[in-house]
Amino acid sequence: MNKFELIKRNTVEIIEENELKEVLKKKKPVVYLGTAITGTPHVGYFLWVLKLADFLKAGFKVKILLADLHGALDNTPWNVLEKRYNYYAKVIPLMFKAIDVNIKDLEFIKGSSFQLKKEYVFDVLRMSSFASAKECKKASSEVVKFGDNPKLSGLIYPIMQALDEEYLRVDVQFAGLDQRKIMVFARENLGKLGYKRRVEVMIPIIPGLVGEKMSASDEKSKIDLLDDEETVKKKINNAECVAGNPNNGIMAFLKYVIMTIKEDRKEKFVVKRDKKYGGDLVYGDYETIEKDFINKKLHPLDLKNAVAEEINKLLKVFKKKELKKVKDLAY
Amino acid sequence: MNKFELIKRNTVEIIEENELKEVLKKKKPVVYLGTAITGTPHVGYFLWVLKLADFLKAGFKVKILLADLHGALDNTPWNVLEKRYNYYAKVIPLMFKAIDVNIKDLEFIKGSSFQLKKEYVFDVLRMSSFASAKECKKASSEVVKFGDNPKLSGLIYPIMQALDEEYLRVDVQFAGLDQRKIMVFARENLGKLGYKRRVEVMIPIIPGLVGEKMSASDEKSKIDLLDDEETVKKKINNAECVAGNPNNGIMAFLKYVIMTIKEDRKEKFVVKRDKKYGGDLVYGDYETIEKDFINKKLHPLDLKNAVAEEINKLLKVFKKKELKKVKDLAY
Repeated sequence: MNKFELIKRNTVEIIEENELKEVLKKKKPVVYLGTAITGTPHVGYFLWVLKLADFLKAGFKVKILLADLHGALDNTPWNVLEKRYNYYAKVIPLMFKAIDVNIKDLEFIKGSSFQLKKEYVFDVLRMSSFASAKECKKASSEVVKFGDNPKLSGLIYPIMQALDEEYLRVDVQFAGLDQRKIMVFARENLGKLGYKRRVEVMIPIIPGLVGEKMSASDEKSKIDLLDDEETVKKKINNAECVAGNPNNGIMAFLKYVIMTIKEDRKEKFVVKRDKKYGGDLVYGDYETIEKDFINKKLHPLDLKNAVAEEINKLLKVFKKKELKKVKDLAY
Repeated sequence: MNKFELIKRNTVEIIEENELKEVLKKKKPVVYLGTAITGTPHVGYFLWVLKLADFLKAGFKVKILLADLHGALDNTPWNVLEKRYNYYAKVIPLMFKAIDVNIKDLEFIKGSSFQLKKEYVFDVLRMSSFASAKECKKASSEVVKFGDNPKLSGLIYPIMQALDEEYLRVDVQFAGLDQRKIMVFARENLGKLGYKRRVEVMIPIIPGLVGEKMSASDEKSKIDLLDDEETVKKKINNAECVAGNPNNGIMAFLKYVIMTIKEDRKEKFVVKRDKKYGGDLVYGDYETIEKDFINKKLHPLDLKNAVAEEINKLLKVFKKKELKKVKDLAY
């Protein structure tokens, strides 16, 4: 796979592909992903962690913005913000350890470390004088939890995210598809301040175990990184997964996380089955699993057991008492 | 006149009077007025300059915020902002010279000198997470020129004005009645950040020479501080001033500026008139002038001539070539 294909796999949209190709000519291009300090990080985060691993393999410098101020702008109470940041700062690096990536070119940056600086703030005010309130609200509508009476903070949110592209000196912003409107907003507004627009790379938002989206703020929809083995099994067991229909959170996680890891490592995905039901199933790629699932050769219960086992393997690195303590302080 | 009466004269509202009385017990209370760097300062500014003179006489420390960033948030182009600030910084102090006040306790502060600091900006973000976008827009609706598609900057405007009360360490904010909604917004929102609410003192907005309001951005409505004697005469001559009806910009300026100065100095206001029309009229207070005007004993033309003369006296200090140069750079 060449660099472009590596970046593109598992993505859903790139604005624009030809610009990305230009960026790839650079000796050391820079990409960033911002994760707002909000709810608790869950296994869905592995989607972007894996994609960042792809960026690393493609020779990028990778910056992860631990966006504490953005968290507060999206309803994280100010009095727990620093504690939640502490938890993210502990747990996100472990996700890279879990998938065993070389993180020499990975850097973590705390939002408030540069977003309160004079030049940055001046640019926030400048951009706010060019962007309409309506446009700002629209931009963050799929990201910020607005409720009935949107707070002003949610309208400042996309302006700061746009400026992060400039102040983090990146060539590419990478995020989930829910960030699309903010990314387009950034491309439209950076130019007004004399800054260049960036390439935007997006991965899909996968369904939750229950519900449409694996959400940091909905406990049932997701598996928390600190969930113990039994909880993982139970949650997976209760997940929506109808025989023959692959549109669910389990299959999506299998595709974007488990099988991406397996294929890269040239490992097989094994579904254990009693001999009387035909014995173990062994898969080398996602497509074959999906075909078997649609044709009902692979039963949801067997699939769930195998996926739960893989998730528990991934979560081994998080089994530390200390993490639990840091988390309990923050939530 | 006691201190309370001195502060209250010519005002239209005080929120709350009993709080002001408490403030007056302090040894050196502090008041501020902010003037956004927008259009060109005009003679209407003398209303607040005179009121600030009252605050000085009442023993206040007086701070004038030359609000450059607020100007930009309300449509002053960023590329002329500094030049306009330079003009305000030259011309506003001269207004105090024009009315001959002791300015030992008067201080000028540039908005951007503290409004880009970390702590201030952090509080802007904090307040934005408590205040709804709707509330912010409503607050600045009478101050900011919104147009059809309000820019986000106009919604950030009242948050910064609220925080100015805290960061300028004042007991009282003083302004024109058009600022009322922002002042109430400040009182409602400072508490959410753990700051105390301030006393708000307001003077009326007087009519323009033409139109409802003496506006920095409408040339015909106002007399510019740098207007020459002939221009002043011409503008006053063209002003709306119907015999018998005292509701116009000329009478308001007479009341709030000219007669306030005259009464303080125990000087008389003289309307020159040819002997054949009854000779000069001499007034010691505004009320008598108004009565004569309503009863048509005082003709608009005679009144206009006298007012033009008084304004030209006030504007003598501004007759400097250097000021004109600074102004020409800025507009």
